[in-house]
Amino acid sequence: MTQQRFLLHEHELPTHWYNIIADMTNPPPPYLHPATLQPLSPEDLAPIFPAELIRQEGSSERWIEIPDEVRHLLQMWRPTPLCRALRWEKALDTPARIYYKWEGASPPGSHKPNTAVAQCYYARKEGLRGFATETGAGQWGSALCFAAQFFGLECRVFMVTSSYHQKPYRRVAMETWGGSVVPSPSSMTQAGRAILARDPETSGSLGMAISEAIEYAVTHEGFKYSLGSVVNFVLLHQTVIGLEAQKQLEMAGDYPDIVIACAGGGSNAAGLMFPFLKEKLNGSRPNLRALFVESTACPSMTRGLYAYDWGDTAKTGPVAKMRTVGHGFVPAPVHAGGLRYHGMAPSICTLLEQGFAEARAYQQNGCFDVAVGFARAEGLIVAPETAHALRAAYDEALACRESGESKVILLNASGHGHFDLAAYDSYLQGALPDHDLEEDQIRRALLELPTVAG
Amino acid sequence: MTQQRFLLHEHELPTHWYNIIADMTNPPPPYLHPATLQPLSPEDLAPIFPAELIRQEGSSERWIEIPDEVRHLLQMWRPTPLCRALRWEKALDTPARIYYKWEGASPPGSHKPNTAVAQCYYARKEGLRGFATETGAGQWGSALCFAAQFFGLECRVFMVTSSYHQKPYRRVAMETWGGSVVPSPSSMTQAGRAILARDPETSGSLGMAISEAIEYAVTHEGFKYSLGSVVNFVLLHQTVIGLEAQKQLEMAGDYPDIVIACAGGGSNAAGLMFPFLKEKLNGSRPNLRALFVESTACPSMTRGLYAYDWGDTAKTGPVAKMRTVGHGFVPAPVHAGGLRYHGMAPSICTLLEQGFAEARAYQQNGCFDVAVGFARAEGLIVAPETAHALRAAYDEALACRESGESKVILLNASGHGHFDLAAYDSYLQGALPDHDLEEDQIRRALLELPTVAG
Repeated sequence: MTQQRFLLHEHELPTHWYNIIADMTNPPPPYLHPATLQPLSPEDLAPIFPAELIRQEGSSERWIEIPDEVRHLLQMWRPTPLCRALRWEKALDTPARIYYKWEGASPPGSHKPNTAVAQCYYARKEGLRGFATETGAGQWGSALCFAAQFFGLECRVFMVTSSYHQKPYRRVAMETWGGSVVPSPSSMTQAGRAILARDPETSGSLGMAISEAIEYAVTHEGFKYSLGSVVNFVLLHQTVIGLEAQKQLEMAGDYPDIVIACAGGGSNAAGLMFPFLKEKLNGSRPNLRALFVESTACPSMTRGLYAYDWGDTAKTGPVAKMRTVGHGFVPAPVHAGGLRYHGMAPSICTLLEQGFAEARAYQQNGCFDVAVGFARAEGLIVAPETAHALRAAYDEALACRESGESKVILLNASGHGHFDLAAYDSYLQGALPDHDLEEDQIRRALLELPTVAG
Repeated sequence: MTQQRFLLHEHELPTHWYNIIADMTNPPPPYLHPATLQPLSPEDLAPIFPAELIRQEGSSERWIEIPDEVRHLLQMWRPTPLCRALRWEKALDTPARIYYKWEGASPPGSHKPNTAVAQCYYARKEGLRGFATETGAGQWGSALCFAAQFFGLECRVFMVTSSYHQKPYRRVAMETWGGSVVPSPSSMTQAGRAILARDPETSGSLGMAISEAIEYAVTHEGFKYSLGSVVNFVLLHQTVIGLEAQKQLEMAGDYPDIVIACAGGGSNAAGLMFPFLKEKLNGSRPNLRALFVESTACPSMTRGLYAYDWGDTAKTGPVAKMRTVGHGFVPAPVHAGGLRYHGMAPSICTLLEQGFAEARAYQQNGCFDVAVGFARAEGLIVAPETAHALRAAYDEALACRESGESKVILLNASGHGHFDLAAYDSYLQGALPDHDLEEDQIRRALLELPTVAG
């Protein structure tokens, strides 16, 4: 019978992270200072991030060594399995060969601990006491609380209010791992209090939670700020996913025609795709397609403007050039999954602008349709975020059925949905609304972009 | 660095189940008919179970071949990892070497699908339309719904009322996999209606839910009944756990001094331990200790009577000789986990009676204490049931610290706790009560045992 799971040994975990910046002819333009809008220096970032992470952020080395202690912790669950979706292929009656990388195998249930462990390692090395961070759907916060305990670090999580109430189990998981969680905006920071004063009933946003976490970090002795996506060093840490998948597909004797992942800030997508995109950038795989999938409820890649924007609502973090729907953007609370950041990783946006990658947006009900079919075929209940990647893979597989092509589709199954079953419940009861962003809402948000020369 | 995970390839999944009955000098006495109390014939079981499972129930063959199609489905997640608990050992400052078999890696999150897949395979082969079953904490119901879909079988689940309300996510998971779930006792069966008439506010019990499921099965064309624990064929199907663990410990160069698992009906415990107990039964490992761990809220092994008793409340299922707190027993609704069956697998009770195994009971708060420590050391949030096994392993590891012995402890981490976070929340808030069974409650329950000659 055809093999379903491709497993690697502990010692086959990659020894180095892959830095795509080294292979980009035109890398993303520099970050700007949030107040002066002038290019940001590493010193400007020093109060916010650990020094080694700032160094990695600006690095153009192609390979960066993974410290032994980080590798040993990653080996708790890595290498993760690569699975052939045999039963799903059969259910879809497609000649496509579909593979998924199962990142839901990590203890916190997603790809997020790949970078959380590394960030906590560098924080500890620097002698920090703890991290403050934001979380939307809760995958990132869970991962950081999980990782922080291995290094004796405290973890303070600002969780977007709507998710805090929709996903109580996520909060309990974070607390079980020793973290402290508050709904954001909170009264714990000036940024939070200012937002609540303007809009006491706000459902919150990642932009607001980032502002609070940065403020908490810079005003508390021994704390720095930890970010779960968007910036280069996070995407770098995620490349173990794609590097493993390359070895595993080699075991399977296949190579992808198309790689697919969902993207909120872009980290799981970059993690899977960047090692493959290396081969497109260097010309050896010119026909490889890289498809980033987002939600119509927060369509930064498909409807945003490619422009400099602040990374957070209170304008305290770096300004980055990216596709954005505006730093003041608040996603509709009916949106069940993550994928709710107003911008997108600058490196991914550069690749999109340069035509090395493509983007697509989906409504959530169409994603749950496919996720339920996937659960019944492959047994796994995935996170709503991951359901967006499944939806795109489904459409590609059906296109193969039409055309008769046996394409190889590789997707990142970035996380399980065990803490998202309230959303599945709504979906199964027909009570989950779709949501499109109104043109006006985007136009209003974009009016607030900074004016940057050039 | 010391290896943490011991992985086997797909093709190393065992080809045969191990049947401990073949190695018992005095196997368990026969089942009795629920009405006549005379020895039960295979024909008596025919309306309830698929024929091949009845054959396996009575078999004394040592090895029973696993059908190819069942193996292929098990390979979706099996072989499961064997993990060395390096960080937990360090946290406990123990010289013991602790290994855990991680059954939470299955899609439904526990060991239960090991038998669910096999049962559905035989049901389909027999041309059945569906299964009715009971579930307590929900792990079994999830596993059967998950497995049923692969064979196009319908699945009707009677879920103990207290769990149905405490664990809504379990219900949603079952529905996502296409199952139908009702709280039990329900008005859907005569047995359920009779119980509700006597006690409309009952929190339910496994004994009641079994009665309802059997009744539903025998009164619906094309349905039979599926049981998730207790009987020989279920325990048989679980032995893949221990057979894999034997190979994996060999890779690690170790052999257990003590094997530990929690036991409600006994299936995960038997699955891990029977292949090791084979070597105690045949005299080659006389010093091996096998420790079955239960809850003080339902202490069949440590406080029950070894006697014939009905397997269900309505007295419609087989009568078995086992340690029992009485078929009318209702566990306190404050009890968070599974481990709530009034009896115990007859084969395990026989081993306990003959001195080949030992049993111990714990209060739930002491189990959660250890489970939270384990989550912070090993990253995994386990089910409350599994927490009982962890508690026993913890006590053994601390005894090693006292004595300075480097014992090898092997435990079954039977399931994850992702759907049990409400219980963790109560525990973390100090709001989870402990519960001891009162002597009177046991005495009353035991008055209702059948009078059987001999």
